[in-house]
Amino acid sequence: MEWAAYFDERTETMPPAWTRRLEEELLAEQVARCYERAPFYRRKLGEAGVRPEHVLNVEDLRRIPFTTKQELRASQEAEPPLGDFACVDPVEVVRVHLTSGTTGKPLVLGYTAEDLRTSSRIGARAFWAAGARPDDTLLHCLSYSFYTGGLADHGALEETGATMVPVGLGQSRRVLELWDDLRPTAIFSTLTYPLYLAETAQEEGIDPRTLGLRKLIVAGEPGGQLAATRRRLEELWGATLSDTYGLSDVWGTLAAECDERDGLHFSGPDGVLVELVDPETGDPVEIEPGAGGELVFTHLAREATPVLRFRSRDLAEILGVECPCGRTGFRFRVAGRSDDMFRVRGVNVFPSSLEELLRERGLDRFAIVLDRFPVEPPVEILIEGVDGREEELTEVVKARLGFTCVVKSATLPRTEAKAKRLYRVYDGEERPT
Amino acid sequence: MEWAAYFDERTETMPPAWTRRLEEELLAEQVARCYERAPFYRRKLGEAGVRPEHVLNVEDLRRIPFTTKQELRASQEAEPPLGDFACVDPVEVVRVHLTSGTTGKPLVLGYTAEDLRTSSRIGARAFWAAGARPDDTLLHCLSYSFYTGGLADHGALEETGATMVPVGLGQSRRVLELWDDLRPTAIFSTLTYPLYLAETAQEEGIDPRTLGLRKLIVAGEPGGQLAATRRRLEELWGATLSDTYGLSDVWGTLAAECDERDGLHFSGPDGVLVELVDPETGDPVEIEPGAGGELVFTHLAREATPVLRFRSRDLAEILGVECPCGRTGFRFRVAGRSDDMFRVRGVNVFPSSLEELLRERGLDRFAIVLDRFPVEPPVEILIEGVDGREEELTEVVKARLGFTCVVKSATLPRTEAKAKRLYRVYDGEERPT
Repeated sequence: MEWAAYFDERTETMPPAWTRRLEEELLAEQVARCYERAPFYRRKLGEAGVRPEHVLNVEDLRRIPFTTKQELRASQEAEPPLGDFACVDPVEVVRVHLTSGTTGKPLVLGYTAEDLRTSSRIGARAFWAAGARPDDTLLHCLSYSFYTGGLADHGALEETGATMVPVGLGQSRRVLELWDDLRPTAIFSTLTYPLYLAETAQEEGIDPRTLGLRKLIVAGEPGGQLAATRRRLEELWGATLSDTYGLSDVWGTLAAECDERDGLHFSGPDGVLVELVDPETGDPVEIEPGAGGELVFTHLAREATPVLRFRSRDLAEILGVECPCGRTGFRFRVAGRSDDMFRVRGVNVFPSSLEELLRERGLDRFAIVLDRFPVEPPVEILIEGVDGREEELTEVVKARLGFTCVVKSATLPRTEAKAKRLYRVYDGEERPT
Repeated sequence: MEWAAYFDERTETMPPAWTRRLEEELLAEQVARCYERAPFYRRKLGEAGVRPEHVLNVEDLRRIPFTTKQELRASQEAEPPLGDFACVDPVEVVRVHLTSGTTGKPLVLGYTAEDLRTSSRIGARAFWAAGARPDDTLLHCLSYSFYTGGLADHGALEETGATMVPVGLGQSRRVLELWDDLRPTAIFSTLTYPLYLAETAQEEGIDPRTLGLRKLIVAGEPGGQLAATRRRLEELWGATLSDTYGLSDVWGTLAAECDERDGLHFSGPDGVLVELVDPETGDPVEIEPGAGGELVFTHLAREATPVLRFRSRDLAEILGVECPCGRTGFRFRVAGRSDDMFRVRGVNVFPSSLEELLRERGLDRFAIVLDRFPVEPPVEILIEGVDGREEELTEVVKARLGFTCVVKSATLPRTEAKAKRLYRVYDGEERPT
């Protein structure tokens, strides 16, 4: 069957000037609502001398100070569960998700029934771009506990019309046992899962290519946009691979690759406004091909726990502002994420743990090179100003974080050097020296 | 806050004559639809010489032969995934759930978007009767993988307006860690889970009664209606306990106790028609206080995979046809279920395994006495015609099923004696000798 090219053509192919107009209308409403209902934002705007009626466009928005995860956490510690940035009465909240942060307490993020509909709509556009269609039978293999990758993404995937099979984490043998009964054509999972599932199949003498899985949609692990990784998984399964991007603090999945596989498109112009900023100074960075910076998010349609100018600590590179697919949202690649865990031979590594270890030693600018998949030791770590202490650090990393690395001194490119906390996925030749 | 007494007053307090009229209207539509779209039902009606236009009321419905799980399974084996009893095109199916059967393959049950709305509506009435309200923060602690207890029940609970926390199986330590951040007031889980959670709290020096959990809503294990079990859990938590009933083959949760705690009410008069039949002969049993029999279900509003006269193998006892709560659906207790697993000191026991073992020895009428909670060995098993072989059977059960039992010869009461396959929960003094 020939399906539509877009889940929501009007929104996804809107001329940029229309998108701006839509954003501005929603922005004014959202800021007014936050000011009126949330002491947290009243304080924040008040301290900056901004009245909500002043915020009519993206330029005005920049007068509002950033919101950090630490501030939101402090707000929730003072007033559990949702903090004083929540804009609704608790009885209006029908679900909470947690952020999967590794340092400190998770954030508790609320959804009204309307927020769930918005989340599903934004996610459905992304998953449709990534290939999900009503004639797919789609295995959802992320954990359904707590995080948006579970129920929020399930809701979005279901909205595409695909036949959803709730699987959850693990269960690769069970999935293979049920294969002939379910005949899945698509999977939504971490990047690692299809690899592991293929190995399990091979152990049982089954060639994964014969199983009829045509679409691998992945999330939550670095490397989904690396050419070599993509090629490997696509060959293993005889399927296409599409990467997606989301963060629990904002929405679930809110960006995905289209058929061009040349960058992710944001899918929620009516749900979230995206800014790019210099990760050190916070100055705005213009969104144009080749630009890089930290993603900053402002909800345009969140009722329960909205964020204004939320510092994601995720770094993006703009690959282009046009796309043959017809979507008018810019294309980007995730250059480094602050929260993503990666695995080295069964050891879970959180970049934030490495960061902590380096900061104890007065080092705060580093990049982890993750250009192979699965990640194999030794993992290359580039650190500014580490000269002469490479061996000591290799030992400390092994002892405290449990994996073998090679530490190299390097001058990191401008964008990364300015970011105090980040790790970065390097593809091919662009690695700094 | 004072909440409404019912989730859906009009439907739940409908005079029985109105309910019958509603059932009849929906029944005629559903049977016509099944006949038109599903070869499985066209064969079944054809063999019985019934035309769909003949089926205008419950008496007519009895001319249609029963549907068994074996027939549905055979249909799906011949035409995976949904079998030829499915009534929609696969692209209309947005989710599948599996049945949790222990023998043979699970059934794959489909839901259209409309089916999910029906499921949520039926479940929400039941969960509201069981106490869920918009000002609750509710931990959902059943597995989200595959079965209706996960996503289908989550959807129904969310529909009540309660703030849902997706937890999933296990995680009792994590739940306690997050307690102060989330402040849950209600839980939906197996009967065992709150007991285990209380023990975990006590190990950490916390009295569960201080945690503010006010409502325990339970499912999927025998014993939720046993007075002693209820008392024990209610005292442990300083909370009320409400039992619920559902089966994946039909809908998720579709019956629950109300505030009277004197039997379960079915909550889906617009989604499922309930018959009571003699488990041996299949003859209709009138629904009146004191009556007992096997529950037989006919969908009234299922689009994807409807069942007509589905033999549940679950035994019910009618406790009354009126209730001070005002709900007009009869009150029943689940006297025995065919699929429920129970645990004896960490060993999972499926009654169907015991059944198999007994049938190999020419014994087919038995009851397992589960009147303590948690179940402690030795477990009492009553078997008709076992005289002289008690010791042999005790050994076989230990060797093959892994638990210690006491086998007794008994004459089982009429209802149970006639059921070939069943186990039964006995409360207090009513145990047969």
